Amino acid sequence: MSFISIQEALEKKSSQVKIHGWVYRERKQKDLVFLIIRDHSNIIQTVIKKENVSEKEWGDANKILVESSVELEGEIKEDKRAVTGYEIQVKKLDVVGFADVFPIKKDQSEELLLDNRHLWLRSRKLTSILKIRSTVFGAIHEYFRKNNFFEHQSPSFAPNACEGGSTLFKVDYFGKPMYLTQSWQLYAEAEAAWLHFADLMGLAEGLIKHIVKTVLEKNSEELKILERDVEKLKITLNKKFPVITYDEALKLLEEKQNMKVKWGKDLRTIEEEKLVQLFDTPIFVTHYPKEIKAFYMLEDPKNPKTVLGFDCLAPEG
Amino acid sequence: MSFISIQEALEKKSSQVKIHGWVYRERKQKDLVFLIIRDHSNIIQTVIKKENVSEKEWGDANKILVESSVELEGEIKEDKRAVTGYEIQVKKLDVVGFADVFPIKKDQSEELLLDNRHLWLRSRKLTSILKIRSTVFGAIHEYFRKNNFFEHQSPSFAPNACEGGSTLFKVDYFGKPMYLTQSWQLYAEAEAAWLHFADLMGLAEGLIKHIVKTVLEKNSEELKILERDVEKLKITLNKKFPVITYDEALKLLEEKQNMKVKWGKDLRTIEEEKLVQLFDTPIFVTHYPKEIKAFYMLEDPKNPKTVLGFDCLAPEG
Repeated sequence: MSFISIQEALEKKSSQVKIHGWVYRERKQKDLVFLIIRDHSNIIQTVIKKENVSEKEWGDANKILVESSVELEGEIKEDKRAVTGYEIQVKKLDVVGFADVFPIKKDQSEELLLDNRHLWLRSRKLTSILKIRSTVFGAIHEYFRKNNFFEHQSPSFAPNACEGGSTLFKVDYFGKPMYLTQSWQLYAEAEAAWLHFADLMGLAEGLIKHIVKTVLEKNSEELKILERDVEKLKITLNKKFPVITYDEALKLLEEKQNMKVKWGKDLRTIEEEKLVQLFDTPIFVTHYPKEIKAFYMLEDPKNPKTVLGFDCLAPEG
Repeated sequence: MSFISIQEALEKKSSQVKIHGWVYRERKQKDLVFLIIRDHSNIIQTVIKKENVSEKEWGDANKILVESSVELEGEIKEDKRAVTGYEIQVKKLDVVGFADVFPIKKDQSEELLLDNRHLWLRSRKLTSILKIRSTVFGAIHEYFRKNNFFEHQSPSFAPNACEGGSTLFKVDYFGKPMYLTQSWQLYAEAEAAWLHFADLMGLAEGLIKHIVKTVLEKNSEELKILERDVEKLKITLNKKFPVITYDEALKLLEEKQNMKVKWGKDLRTIEEEKLVQLFDTPIFVTHYPKEIKAFYMLEDPKNPKTVLGFDCLAPEG
C-alpha cells in the first residue's frame, strides 16, 4: 500500500489507509494512545490500542511526544468526536524519529511563543495563515499573467556584498563603486505603459477582488480555523470600491467621526481606521496634497496642489 | 474608439483600429512613411500617406525616429509583404514623444550591443527570450502549486545592510551580529518531506516536462523568431528521461566519445556536453562520488563511496 495524504485519507471515509506525518497532539491512557497526526494537507485523529499492535509498537507509542515523525497504517472510520470527523484505528506503527519535549503548551505567553516561533509556526493557526498567504501570492501572479503582464527579474545594484566577496561583480556607477546584487531579488513592482489614472485604479481593484475570490475558493477551511467572517469578504467581490478624494475624506472624518485633520497633513493610521469604518469594502482615496506624496506622482492639471495618485484603504487595515 | 493591442488588431484582419506603441522601424519615402509599431503583444507595419493626413501629421511622421511613442488610427488590411502579414493605413497620427537617434543599427558588434543593452533588450529577439523566460517562471510556480506545494518567503539573515541603515534589525546570531535582510529575497528552493530518491527525480522530470509543454503552448511565435527547432523540444515531452549512474557516464564517455575521466573527478562542462550529445532528452546522472558532492547528500547504503543525488543534464546545456 502506498502513502496518501491525510486529506486524501479523509476523503476515502472508510478503508485501509497508510499515512505519514508529524504528531500534533498526543494523549496516553492505560491501554490506548491517541495521536493527532499532521501533514501538509490536514490533521487527523488516530488511536493505537494495546491489543492491536506488537509489544515494540506499544512501547514506541508510549514514548511518542509532539512533533515525532511517524508512519501509520490502519482503518479510517467516521467519528464525530474527532477533530476532523474521522479516526484511524492503527494496525501498524513505525516511528521514524522521536522528538524532544515540545516547549509550547496550551495558553502560553506571547513572549514564549515568539521565542519559539520556529515551532509555533507549526500550529494550525499559523499554518492556516501561511497557506492563505501562499494563495495570495499565487493569485497575484495569476492576475497579472491573465492581464498580459510579463514577469522578469532585473539585475540590480547593491552597495554591499550579500553573500561573501568571491563572486562579487563591481560596477562603476557614476563614479561610485557598486555591485551587481548577488541574491536573486524580486523587486515586486508592476509596470504598465499607456495606462490612465482610472485604468490604474481599475487594475488595483481587479487585483484585490481576484485575491479575495481565490482565497475564498481555496482556503475556506483555513478561514474557518482563523474564525474569519467570510461574509465580510464576499461583499468585497460584489461591490464597486468607492472612490473619494482626500478633501472628501477630511470632510467625512470631521462630520461622521468627529476628527479634524488640517488640509495638507497625511492621514495617520488612526484616521485611516476611522475612515474605513464608514465603508464595508476597500476604498480608494485620491488627490492627496502634492507635498506629502512621492515626487514622481503626476500633478492634477485641474488642481496643481494635488496629485493623480491614490491609496487603497481596506477595513481592518 | 478605444485602444486595442497590436495582437488584437491583427486578429481583426480588417476594420478600423486604434493602437499605441513604440516605433520599431521607420522608412521614409517621398510621399510615404512606413512605421513598424511594437507593443507588448506583437509588431505591425503601418503606412502613412501624405494625402491621407494633415500637414502637421505629415510633418510629425517625417520627424519620427525609432522608439518614438505614437498613437495611430486607421484601417487594417492583409498585406503578405508586411512583417506580420497585415498593414494599417493610417488616418490619424498622434506622436506622444519623439525619440532621439537610436544608437543600434543593423549588424552591429557585440560590444556596441552590450554597451546599449537597455535598448538592445527592446529587439524582437531579446523580448522573445524574456517572454519565454516569463513563461518558464509561471510554469514553475504552476507546477509546484499543482503538486500541493506552498509558497513562502522566509525572513533571512544577511551580514550587511542592503539598502541603507535606518531600518536595519540587528540580531545576535550565536555571538555574531547579523541583520534581518531588508530586501524581499526569494530563495528559490523547493522543500519536500517524505520523499524518496526516485520520487525526487520524478518531481524534477515532471517539472521540466511541464515547463517545456507550457513554453510550446504559449510561445510558439517567440520560438519561431528565435529559430528554434520545436521538434527537439517535443521529444522531451514524450520520452522518459534516461537515468544513468556516474559510473555508466564514465563508461559512455570513454567508449563513445573517447574521453577518459578518472573515477572521483567531477564532470566538467565539456564532458557533460559530450555526454548529452548521446541522448535526445535531458538525462539524470546519479550516484556521484561522495567527495565531490555537498555534505548534506545521503550516502548510498549499497556503496558508501557514492551519494543518492543526481544532476539533470540537458542537450545544449
